Amino acid sequence: MQRLRAEAEKFAYEVVVGSGAWRALRTFPLASYSSVFVLTERPLWNRWANSFCRAGGLKEPRCVFVPAGENSKSLRMVERVASRLLEGGADRRSLLIAFGGGVIGDLGGFVAATYMRGIDYIQAPTTLLAQVDSSIGGKTGVDVGAMKNLIGAFYPPKLVVSDPLVLRSLPAGAFASGLFEMIKHAILAGGALFKQLDRSLERLRPANAKLLGPLVADAAKVKIKVVSRDEREAGLRRILNLGHTYGHALEEATGYRRFSHGQAVGWGILLAARLAERLAILDQGEGKKIAGLVRRVGRLPAIHDLSVDRILRLLPRDKKAVGGRIHWVLPERLGKVRIVNDVPEAEVAAALRDLQRAERHE
Amino acid sequence: MQRLRAEAEKFAYEVVVGSGAWRALRTFPLASYSSVFVLTERPLWNRWANSFCRAGGLKEPRCVFVPAGENSKSLRMVERVASRLLEGGADRRSLLIAFGGGVIGDLGGFVAATYMRGIDYIQAPTTLLAQVDSSIGGKTGVDVGAMKNLIGAFYPPKLVVSDPLVLRSLPAGAFASGLFEMIKHAILAGGALFKQLDRSLERLRPANAKLLGPLVADAAKVKIKVVSRDEREAGLRRILNLGHTYGHALEEATGYRRFSHGQAVGWGILLAARLAERLAILDQGEGKKIAGLVRRVGRLPAIHDLSVDRILRLLPRDKKAVGGRIHWVLPERLGKVRIVNDVPEAEVAAALRDLQRAERHE
Repeated sequence: MQRLRAEAEKFAYEVVVGSGAWRALRTFPLASYSSVFVLTERPLWNRWANSFCRAGGLKEPRCVFVPAGENSKSLRMVERVASRLLEGGADRRSLLIAFGGGVIGDLGGFVAATYMRGIDYIQAPTTLLAQVDSSIGGKTGVDVGAMKNLIGAFYPPKLVVSDPLVLRSLPAGAFASGLFEMIKHAILAGGALFKQLDRSLERLRPANAKLLGPLVADAAKVKIKVVSRDEREAGLRRILNLGHTYGHALEEATGYRRFSHGQAVGWGILLAARLAERLAILDQGEGKKIAGLVRRVGRLPAIHDLSVDRILRLLPRDKKAVGGRIHWVLPERLGKVRIVNDVPEAEVAAALRDLQRAERHE
Repeated sequence: MQRLRAEAEKFAYEVVVGSGAWRALRTFPLASYSSVFVLTERPLWNRWANSFCRAGGLKEPRCVFVPAGENSKSLRMVERVASRLLEGGADRRSLLIAFGGGVIGDLGGFVAATYMRGIDYIQAPTTLLAQVDSSIGGKTGVDVGAMKNLIGAFYPPKLVVSDPLVLRSLPAGAFASGLFEMIKHAILAGGALFKQLDRSLERLRPANAKLLGPLVADAAKVKIKVVSRDEREAGLRRILNLGHTYGHALEEATGYRRFSHGQAVGWGILLAARLAERLAILDQGEGKKIAGLVRRVGRLPAIHDLSVDRILRLLPRDKKAVGGRIHWVLPERLGKVRIVNDVPEAEVAAALRDLQRAERHE
């Protein structure tokens, strides 16, 4: 178990990662709150409530359940959760624990940010993706129509507790999705994390908490380091978008049905690496290492049938783009990326066609 | 025209009040935004768009219209407004101007707080209540069911421009509603503001911008002073709840149909003054001055038929109460209030009965 610290001008909180992380709740001042609520999904809670409450010293917290899936990231659900909290007697001195994956974390964080204009909350992420990425950094939000996170807030949690034990109940697809984000962090960090991931990728399994623990902690450190230096995303935080520019376009082009978020990021990394190679930013040898690791996670859903023009059109809709510009995050080598704002569209298209062609010839 | 400044640890913005205040937009860096949107109500905008845009140097801002009335303070409307902004091309560098009364200000502020996790906004309040009170302090929010402002955020505007010229189109009832909040501020401030209001109350009319301007500015100063020293409401800001504890209960007890917010605050001030007299906190002579001024605004809707028990039950539902406690803001004299946390319920009930009895004997 490692106690990490996310800290910047406007926030400071602990991120406790590893086996036994839930025990960190015992040293959190739970008793200073008027009440404690858990936002979660019913099957997940049924499976883990006993372990979580016993480890954390929680006595029968009140639960608010939401259905699993991205559809729960809506203002309608914010309203429903807020009503349940109110009925349950939650006031400004109540604490909310978001126990779940990215959807629960984003929704719970946004509810916490806005319920009675803001209450304290804790992230207890239960998916690999949430543990290494979305639970850290204070980004919260819900979708409006097809637009992901259109309504949201920067609102840091008071504590993050990530125990890899809980990954045991994670479906294989969701686990793989988290691995792609882990690889993204490994590319950003380079060095030991990439090597370790490279050495052990095939042995990483949801139930292998012992092997996962240190890797999750190291991947979380990458995110913590970035958000601790730049809590808004205008600057450094942008590097976290590695793989997400192409990735978002792929997700949108297929109505969020063909790719899991992680798979889209997987493709996004491959495409960004290819683009960086074309622009002679990335050394080919390093490019091979990156692509090799991504490919080893498993076969990705096809992209060869997607319209390149359509994907290009969907790129600027990334809301991180100011005034329509695209800030490409391109790898130079393991451990180093570069932000490029003036990539010719022809090259963006060519990188896509390169990988579509390769896929057809497989 | 007066340029006031609201400033605390986490924010700093100008509040420009008085005839010609809209011209302050000319020195605001409008051109630095990717686009400017106005959130408003259609009839109001039809009446004032030309004057506002000409004074402020705004060139055809894009408008998002919402229906008048408290029903627009909903998450459904947040979703609708966010969709319109997105369709109109609003991005993170867009500016939102909330042109309207308290509903537009609260809704617009909340949309600004959460659209793409936060964009800049300007308050251009068009009701007396919004000019002296709700546009200042950064409280934003929407209702959930019967619960006012259950979902919201503290999110300061970049600028507030209050021109009393616009009050010309304000209905008499809404104008009176603002006068009650002005009286609240005058009690908190004491001194010149109370005297001036006392001298001129009957001459205050929506179209009398010349007389209103300085009074609106002085009343706004009271709010600015409080929020500048305490941007959250745990401390000093609580004194702004003068008249709002009883007031909220009266509004809830009558389903928000019998009293305008201002009228409820009017009763709330009378009741708080009576309670303070009963507790020997308030000098009787000063109590008479306070009550006299409130009564002169106009006849208030009846309270004699309301169940005292029901009102008592509704008091703790005020979300400002921590763990069910009620923080009574009671006047000691003009210019001084006291927060009392342990008022016996019997006295709270007795103050209510006193005024109900007085009403029956009128």
